[in-house]
Amino acid sequence: MAPIDASASQGDAPQGEPLTIAQIAELAGVSTATVSKVVNGRVDVALETRGLIEELIRRHGYRRQKRPSKPTALLEVVFHELRGLYGIEILNGVHPVARQHGLGVVVSELEGRHTPGRGWVEEVLARRPTGVLSVFAGPTVDQSEQLDSRGIPLVFVDPTGEPSHRFPSVGASNWNGGLAATRHLLELGHRRIAVITGPEHMIASRARLDGYRAAMDLVGVPVDPGLMRVGDFEIASGRELARELLRLSEPPTAVFACNDGMALGVYQAATEAGLRIPDDLSVVGFDDLPLAEWHIPPLTTVRQPLHEMAAAAANMVVAVAEGKALHRHRVELSTELIERASTAPPRRTAFR
Amino acid sequence: MAPIDASASQGDAPQGEPLTIAQIAELAGVSTATVSKVVNGRVDVALETRGLIEELIRRHGYRRQKRPSKPTALLEVVFHELRGLYGIEILNGVHPVARQHGLGVVVSELEGRHTPGRGWVEEVLARRPTGVLSVFAGPTVDQSEQLDSRGIPLVFVDPTGEPSHRFPSVGASNWNGGLAATRHLLELGHRRIAVITGPEHMIASRARLDGYRAAMDLVGVPVDPGLMRVGDFEIASGRELARELLRLSEPPTAVFACNDGMALGVYQAATEAGLRIPDDLSVVGFDDLPLAEWHIPPLTTVRQPLHEMAAAAANMVVAVAEGKALHRHRVELSTELIERASTAPPRRTAFR
Repeated sequence: MAPIDASASQGDAPQGEPLTIAQIAELAGVSTATVSKVVNGRVDVALETRGLIEELIRRHGYRRQKRPSKPTALLEVVFHELRGLYGIEILNGVHPVARQHGLGVVVSELEGRHTPGRGWVEEVLARRPTGVLSVFAGPTVDQSEQLDSRGIPLVFVDPTGEPSHRFPSVGASNWNGGLAATRHLLELGHRRIAVITGPEHMIASRARLDGYRAAMDLVGVPVDPGLMRVGDFEIASGRELARELLRLSEPPTAVFACNDGMALGVYQAATEAGLRIPDDLSVVGFDDLPLAEWHIPPLTTVRQPLHEMAAAAANMVVAVAEGKALHRHRVELSTELIERASTAPPRRTAFR
Repeated sequence: MAPIDASASQGDAPQGEPLTIAQIAELAGVSTATVSKVVNGRVDVALETRGLIEELIRRHGYRRQKRPSKPTALLEVVFHELRGLYGIEILNGVHPVARQHGLGVVVSELEGRHTPGRGWVEEVLARRPTGVLSVFAGPTVDQSEQLDSRGIPLVFVDPTGEPSHRFPSVGASNWNGGLAATRHLLELGHRRIAVITGPEHMIASRARLDGYRAAMDLVGVPVDPGLMRVGDFEIASGRELARELLRLSEPPTAVFACNDGMALGVYQAATEAGLRIPDDLSVVGFDDLPLAEWHIPPLTTVRQPLHEMAAAAANMVVAVAEGKALHRHRVELSTELIERASTAPPRRTAFR
């Protein structure tokens, strides 16, 4: 069972009737045993032969003979990398759904690479999981198709690259979050509001930044390019970029850091510069990871419902695996501004 | 294959020759199919019958007929609970070992219960993993024996209850860590050093506290019971207990918090009380989780090598699964004091 109806697939969809193992074997000039090995993720087949067989499956699709073997009661969760509290939040969202359906949760991480390395997909194919949940990590098109052709559902949580229309995904309303964060600062009276975004290639970064711009535009405050910085979602980049901003001849009175980690970096830079938060500088983050309320002062931030996103994605995987149609191919959960103690009116409002 | 040689088992070890499925079936008065179901973790057998069969296996042991079926290429990691950065550190230690041996990592958590609930062990038996790594969570004696009798190796990371002599385990030198933390504060000139420990039933808490006492005794500084508090390793308890300590008529000039979370709580209480760290109060933590260096000021803490502990435990699981003898049944890795910016000489030394 393909994750979504084949007729809904876009682009390079398989053509004509899917082939059986016997037909693939004939076309490739190999034994059915060899094709079966490749289908099941075994790696004891020459790389060239594997490539040829994968190409045939990609072009024509693959049809299981008779009754497909039952998938194992495993749900694969693959992370771009396991660092920080983000991953814990996701797993805590997945676990109750997995328990409810009697699924074990297999966790892989890609050592910071956004694309699974050689071996990852073969391991997954060999395990024949009920489905795969990809967090912040996009398998390559080839790898996704390998899963798809074996009928292993794939659902994305918070995709960061080009949104993949082929597979279902769950995200959060990043744009709204950026808008709410910036609007909050504007309402407090701030005008020189800096923004530290995540990497430009991530759709989520772009959406948060666009929300910032929209909030500024809507009240007629011009966006100063000198107050915009591109970070990488790491604490250190928040610190370095905030140092730059605070050294400006007209420094910002508030910073919107596009994740909680970078907001913590802004706290560091402010402390170094002898500034108090929120008296001298207001800071808003994004994510509301469990530590945000423990920052000193507690961080005002945009809550991204990571638990719920992960649970929704896990439920989608299970639904597809059970052959159900998804209500929606793309689910977007709402973000929410959580006001704590890191924001206050500016001490003296520049540029009014 | 039992995790350790049966002759080395203590206490309630199985007696005589282990029974085959057929023998167990005869003794229990049920079919071999029923016994086989129980052995494989199926739950479609009446609870009473399951109990009877488990009891027979517990009493006599269980011997696989002919060639045992190969375990699946899965390594189970079971957490007491998945919260905070501790779990991420453990998983990052396990993953490289798992990858090296082609094992998928199944992650379960017990929702804060220290003993796996009904259903957990049956799920594990049904998955037939290569082995189980228990982090901060002790399966019950029954559950451990169920794993053992199926030849599924079990290794503990940082056991918190009574050390289980029956199964191999990996810990850290908690006592040394407590000693190093306290000695560091003494060397800076502190004498009124408070300690906030973890729960009393945890061996690790007790060891850290004993290290504190030893350091004080060794330089002849009497331990003031008024400066000792029992926390629960949560941030909030660090804050509340530090509030109490700072309200004393003779407050401490330094606090040794027995984990990083509680140290962050001490930061909160100090900030509330208008005290600066380290000028007015020195703080030492324990664990050195990734955020410790990002505290403001960066936290001086005792590094517990969680990565290495998890990797060592995973390697032990693999070794036992491969039938190798373990060099050591209990591995203890060393802790190390990491000096950062949260400690300084006391402003005025009381009680000199």
